[in-house]
Amino acid sequence: MTELSSTPRTVLGRSKARGRTDRAELHAVLDAGLICHLGVIVDGSPMVIPTGYGRIGDTLYVHGSTGARSLRTAPGDTICVTVTHLDGIVLARSVFHHSVNYRSAMIYGVPRLVTDEDERMAGLAAITEQLAPGQWDYARLPNRKEMAATAVLALSLEEASVKMRAAGPSDDDEDYDLPIWAGVLPVVTTWGVPETDPKMTQDVPVPAHISGR
Amino acid sequence: MTELSSTPRTVLGRSKARGRTDRAELHAVLDAGLICHLGVIVDGSPMVIPTGYGRIGDTLYVHGSTGARSLRTAPGDTICVTVTHLDGIVLARSVFHHSVNYRSAMIYGVPRLVTDEDERMAGLAAITEQLAPGQWDYARLPNRKEMAATAVLALSLEEASVKMRAAGPSDDDEDYDLPIWAGVLPVVTTWGVPETDPKMTQDVPVPAHISGR
Repeated sequence: MTELSSTPRTVLGRSKARGRTDRAELHAVLDAGLICHLGVIVDGSPMVIPTGYGRIGDTLYVHGSTGARSLRTAPGDTICVTVTHLDGIVLARSVFHHSVNYRSAMIYGVPRLVTDEDERMAGLAAITEQLAPGQWDYARLPNRKEMAATAVLALSLEEASVKMRAAGPSDDDEDYDLPIWAGVLPVVTTWGVPETDPKMTQDVPVPAHISGR
Repeated sequence: MTELSSTPRTVLGRSKARGRTDRAELHAVLDAGLICHLGVIVDGSPMVIPTGYGRIGDTLYVHGSTGARSLRTAPGDTICVTVTHLDGIVLARSVFHHSVNYRSAMIYGVPRLVTDEDERMAGLAAITEQLAPGQWDYARLPNRKEMAATAVLALSLEEASVKMRAAGPSDDDEDYDLPIWAGVLPVVTTWGVPETDPKMTQDVPVPAHISGR
């Protein structure tokens, strides 16, 4: 088990018991996600953008249009990427101890604009497969024009922290005898039934890598 | 219908067709959410923190421990709050046109530390009810010590933008005849079965405001 770094930014200031230092847990939180929230500073203000991402080893990839404001952050500036899974609402006997069960990863770093064409393709494949496993080998791959319109950023996972809570309520001792129900209401994210594009021009069945998720 | 503001930050730079300018839509996106991602600048770096929130009229409330790093952002600094609902994976014929269906709200503003006790209580009620409707009137309310440990921030919804995508794939004309299935895989967030705290000391049924969600 590789320990995550503990720079001043990623040493947990609060709720240390919820911190995790295992790199495999960081990978697991990232691999289970669909979108991240990307934090950049634009004109002196923080900007938080939901976007897709992908992971290859200890590198996270994000992409965007070459014209996107969020990618026009100054070169050398630090960004923050957060991936959060909300797993349940923790209903305590007291309002004060209400909480959520969750898994979250927070990554800091100075992104690198990927210029190598092979790495650009690999990064885009990782981003596509994160949202839609199996689609990179199934759909039409990017052509030269599409690649030219796409910026790919790489972010090292070196400086990262993981926090989790997966437990029942933690109430004050004197509250346990109150006649108040307490527990956890799980939040479950599932897939609906695939909706075929009405603009299909031929009869193609839903591929197993989509219907079987 | 009240139009949302359009300051340079919230005028949509890209995908203008996905922008919404109706204040009711902003409220709807916020009211349907469970957590937000709060962006602050700490020591010159962006920091993106998942946290609860609540809305009263055109004010958003967030809270935290009085010791939390994320709330120690410099007074007068702008923050960004983003709420995102992921509604579906858009599977196009080309990798390039893969997308997601979503609803997201982004709010910018300088937060105000709430000091009025009535507003602090109202803000905490809104935050609690956002995550767990019905609990403010059911669970034990905060006592003086708990209130003293809690910081409540208010953020005006004046400067906000809403983006949505709710459609099938939009492929290049020449790709429609490819023998590739295209469509949308819905992402559905639901509630699991309430899990009663094994530390209950008496037999209390799950209240209807929890079991009936």
